[in-house]
Amino acid sequence: MTDLRIAIVGFGKIARDQHVGAIAATAGAALAAVASRNASLSNLPHFATIEELLHKGPPIDAVSLCTPPQVRRAQAAAALAAGKHVMLEKPPGTGVAELDPLIAMAADAKRTLFATWHSRYAPAVEPAREWLATRRIRSVHINWKEDVRVWHPGQAWIWEPGGLGVFDPGINALSILTRILPKSVFVTAAELAFPANRQAPIAANLTLTDIGDTPITAEFDFRQTGPQSWDIVVETDQGRMSLSRGGRVMAVDGKIISEAPDEEYRELYRRFVVLAATGASDVDLAPLRLVADSFLLGERTIVEPFMD
Amino acid sequence: MTDLRIAIVGFGKIARDQHVGAIAATAGAALAAVASRNASLSNLPHFATIEELLHKGPPIDAVSLCTPPQVRRAQAAAALAAGKHVMLEKPPGTGVAELDPLIAMAADAKRTLFATWHSRYAPAVEPAREWLATRRIRSVHINWKEDVRVWHPGQAWIWEPGGLGVFDPGINALSILTRILPKSVFVTAAELAFPANRQAPIAANLTLTDIGDTPITAEFDFRQTGPQSWDIVVETDQGRMSLSRGGRVMAVDGKIISEAPDEEYRELYRRFVVLAATGASDVDLAPLRLVADSFLLGERTIVEPFMD
Repeated sequence: MTDLRIAIVGFGKIARDQHVGAIAATAGAALAAVASRNASLSNLPHFATIEELLHKGPPIDAVSLCTPPQVRRAQAAAALAAGKHVMLEKPPGTGVAELDPLIAMAADAKRTLFATWHSRYAPAVEPAREWLATRRIRSVHINWKEDVRVWHPGQAWIWEPGGLGVFDPGINALSILTRILPKSVFVTAAELAFPANRQAPIAANLTLTDIGDTPITAEFDFRQTGPQSWDIVVETDQGRMSLSRGGRVMAVDGKIISEAPDEEYRELYRRFVVLAATGASDVDLAPLRLVADSFLLGERTIVEPFMD
Repeated sequence: MTDLRIAIVGFGKIARDQHVGAIAATAGAALAAVASRNASLSNLPHFATIEELLHKGPPIDAVSLCTPPQVRRAQAAAALAAGKHVMLEKPPGTGVAELDPLIAMAADAKRTLFATWHSRYAPAVEPAREWLATRRIRSVHINWKEDVRVWHPGQAWIWEPGGLGVFDPGINALSILTRILPKSVFVTAAELAFPANRQAPIAANLTLTDIGDTPITAEFDFRQTGPQSWDIVVETDQGRMSLSRGGRVMAVDGKIISEAPDEEYRELYRRFVVLAATGASDVDLAPLRLVADSFLLGERTIVEPFMD
């Protein structure tokens, strides 16, 4: 089988930190080009826009869209129209409905549309899911707090409409939650704290539940200095399961059950190669839908301005 | 066939203005009880809550939930669990995801869940849909402006989180839009004007499109005094189609093609009777999804406080 020739579109922090290395480490995948307004990678064909890439670039089979969510839909449509497989960074869009025509295009063209949720590929997520499948869940609490200045330096788009603010990391927690719980969940209340000078929330408290009224709460905060937390704690009839460090460590009643190094993005590209082999798609909108519902029914408070 | 015995839950303005008369006018439907904290109807069994209705009330087959959206999901779950068919006023929920477990419950119980969009049953909507099916659409503009003090007196819930504000009428326009256009649409930008003292927008401008980049705009405003407008104008290759007065009048290039009196709620109950005969469900979440996306990706501005 020849390699899946992939072009990265949008060469910002996440592309450099994760995608380049993951493609290099994935059998069956090869990085063939980069499209980015500003950045390039030596030894690789570079184009300013996806249109240039598609019209003048070397032969490619797929694009991996690492641009901000606000511009990704049009890029995905252009790539699918050109017969390319498409991998979308998270979140898959600025709205839920914009995915529908992309899903239809991909199906019609027999091309892969892969809406990725990298945190679902954290090593302890599947062990946690399997462990929970046979327990009675009493409550769930998510504590997802990080310092935006450390993790999102200069990412102005994150504060713009459609940029999600603290839900940009928070949606990672929701992507894990919707994977590990056996029942579908929904938001019943939300408090969203918007800095007076920004269009996206800097903190949020969510209340969720499922058809069985399981109490589920989430605290997201972008103002966390000192220790950072990316933790989910599930109380069950057979003990307390904790998934910490963004899904890398699973423990039950404090005893570590599963711990492994992060290979999230390698797993994503392994899966992309498999999907593209048959043109199958993988688009789960549940995490984005929970965020949209949070904005829809959330109570807004205005908090002090955020200066980058 | 015996009548479908229906209890109205939530006896506010919409129940009194529309539901009671529509049930009375619908063959195969009978109003059997009312559940409402405050209001009742003479000659009918009355209960304070849906729980009382279900436990102590007369035999019923179905409930029609006319309560504010914030409390409807739990009521729908209780009714389905008790084996009743459920009709939901619009919007079907405070969030999109909360419908999933209800849809599953209804399917499991072989009971009807009918998420109504009354404006879709306005008399000129189907003629408009049929006319548009064979035209090339160039643009769409929605103008949906009404005086909240006239149409929603004392409806405090409309300003609370989950109450939708100007999207409460606006979602009627979106329910028509998603019915008459041949392609699915999505929101690309939104401006939401929130009164400084309220949790829901008093006005909104939306930009939408479809996979073919059709320009679609919508203006919603709750501050409209004087003439009210509930109009959709579609420019096509074969003239300008207008749907006005909330879907009651269809005209092409100013010439009226279709005009009929409003029987929206009678049509809803006719359909509910048909659905309940086989326990089939009808839940289209597209309009609510567009509203959720508008909140998710919308730009918020704060405007002067609104005093009822």
